[in-house]
Amino acid sequence: MPSPAESAHPSDDTTTLAELRQIVGDFVAERDWSQFHSPKNVSMALAIEAAELMEHFQWLTTEASRQLAEDPKKLAEIGEELADVVGYSLALANELGLDVSQAIRDKMVKNAQKYPADQYRGRFGPEDDGPRSC
Amino acid sequence: MPSPAESAHPSDDTTTLAELRQIVGDFVAERDWSQFHSPKNVSMALAIEAAELMEHFQWLTTEASRQLAEDPKKLAEIGEELADVVGYSLALANELGLDVSQAIRDKMVKNAQKYPADQYRGRFGPEDDGPRSC
Amino acid sequence: MPSPAESAHPSDDTTTLAELRQIVGDFVAERDWSQFHSPKNVSMALAIEAAELMEHFQWLTTEASRQLAEDPKKLAEIGEELADVVGYSLALANELGLDVSQAIRDKMVKNAQKYPADQYRGRFGPEDDGPRSC
Amino acid sequence: MPSPAESAHPSDDTTTLAELRQIVGDFVAERDWSQFHSPKNVSMALAIEAAELMEHFQWLTTEASRQLAEDPKKLAEIGEELADVVGYSLALANELGLDVSQAIRDKMVKNAQKYPADQYRGRFGPEDDGPRSC
Repeated sequence: MPSPAESAHPSDDTTTLAELRQIVGDFVAERDWSQFHSPKNVSMALAIEAAELMEHFQWLTTEASRQLAEDPKKLAEIGEELADVVGYSLALANELGLDVSQAIRDKMVKNAQKYPADQYRGRFGPEDDGPRSC
Repeated sequence: MPSPAESAHPSDDTTTLAELRQIVGDFVAERDWSQFHSPKNVSMALAIEAAELMEHFQWLTTEASRQLAEDPKKLAEIGEELADVVGYSLALANELGLDVSQAIRDKMVKNAQKYPADQYRGRFGPEDDGPRSC
Repeated sequence: MPSPAESAHPSDDTTTLAELRQIVGDFVAERDWSQFHSPKNVSMALAIEAAELMEHFQWLTTEASRQLAEDPKKLAEIGEELADVVGYSLALANELGLDVSQAIRDKMVKNAQKYPADQYRGRFGPEDDGPRSC
Repeated sequence: MPSPAESAHPSDDTTTLAELRQIVGDFVAERDWSQFHSPKNVSMALAIEAAELMEHFQWLTTEASRQLAEDPKKLAEIGEELADVVGYSLALANELGLDVSQAIRDKMVKNAQKYPADQYRGRFGPEDDGPRSC
């Protein structure tokens, strides 16, 4: 049970997926927007928000994109786009009745089989022949 | 503290964002993949997974896309793509030090101001002149 | 050789791919932007513009999206986004030295083998069991 | 009129936009696929192909992505994805009755006003304070 302090400043440490899904679901229900939230439409909205997130990094080198972590103004803008992406992800889970945490746990088991840690350490894929900086 | 039953079957009701971030972060660390996880690269990976998610709905009508909720095989495939999208979202949050739940709460406040419930009930935007099915 | 009238109003009937590639290439060269136009960056720009194009159709039914062809204002906006998508496609071809028309002809031969007309008439894929409207 | 040699090896120098639009349009008509080619659906297909194109550059540095121009096998794969992107762009133009070359010429005029060459030489945007390599 969260302490009063935690309630006042909720964070990823204390917030469950279900709580965020509820926030998103209430927002949709209050506007009667479920009629627009067919999985097809929500998947488009999600992809559009993912593109807006990418836009922040579009012309930067991979190295320069790391430095945005030190820029509070940029970070706030990126956080808004990330919120949109995760928000639509949860809206899609709401429409389809999917459990997000279960889906992630299951997928990570598959990923671990596909990319065994000892074979892929420092390599991003079969065509990558070894560690590099990027 | 989760009961043993909850540990055995973790779900969105009992899983915090921080727990999922840890699962994703451990996977990346075990492979020494943070070197590839510049925000620029992760934002590309996220957009690619969002496109793979869309692929399931690409040729369907909006109405037909809702019916996939009743198709367990399709639903499992969609769940995998959704897991990839949320997984990369959390990987990006890990790289940038963003609190996802805070970002979503903040953005939903902004959204509520931009789309007041009484003005947007049953309308998806300014150019939409009223309720319709879709 | 185009007649004076054709020069005054160039159209898809009289414009070669090479002419459009030149227009895009000159624009990039005049700004010394080739330094930003790594294939990675241009592919991101292209995906971002594709998302902006999608945005026009995001909340519409598939049927309603067809009606935008009759809306000159919307059509002009869509034309701008399509121009961005094709423009970045040509910029990428310029950077990589690819012949677009050859690539399309080759791919259409492959597509015709993958989707024989007699097997796919009115069906969008293996899981589609017959004609429908959408 | 193209010489026999040009007909045998058509290229961007000799191919008009209208010729490519015809190739794409015939392919769609032979399969009775216009019923699936609502602008909404085609815009999704286009965005999905743009993501597949990006996938080739996803984990590379911007510099490394340039080196793919020297790798014939990779270049052929990239050419196929680019063909899909441009192919769906032309399919959308076919459905909406848009002239692609006119749209690009119009947009480049707008772009030249938005990004005057003397102000943006070596800078990708307002927040970019000068030339750099990337």
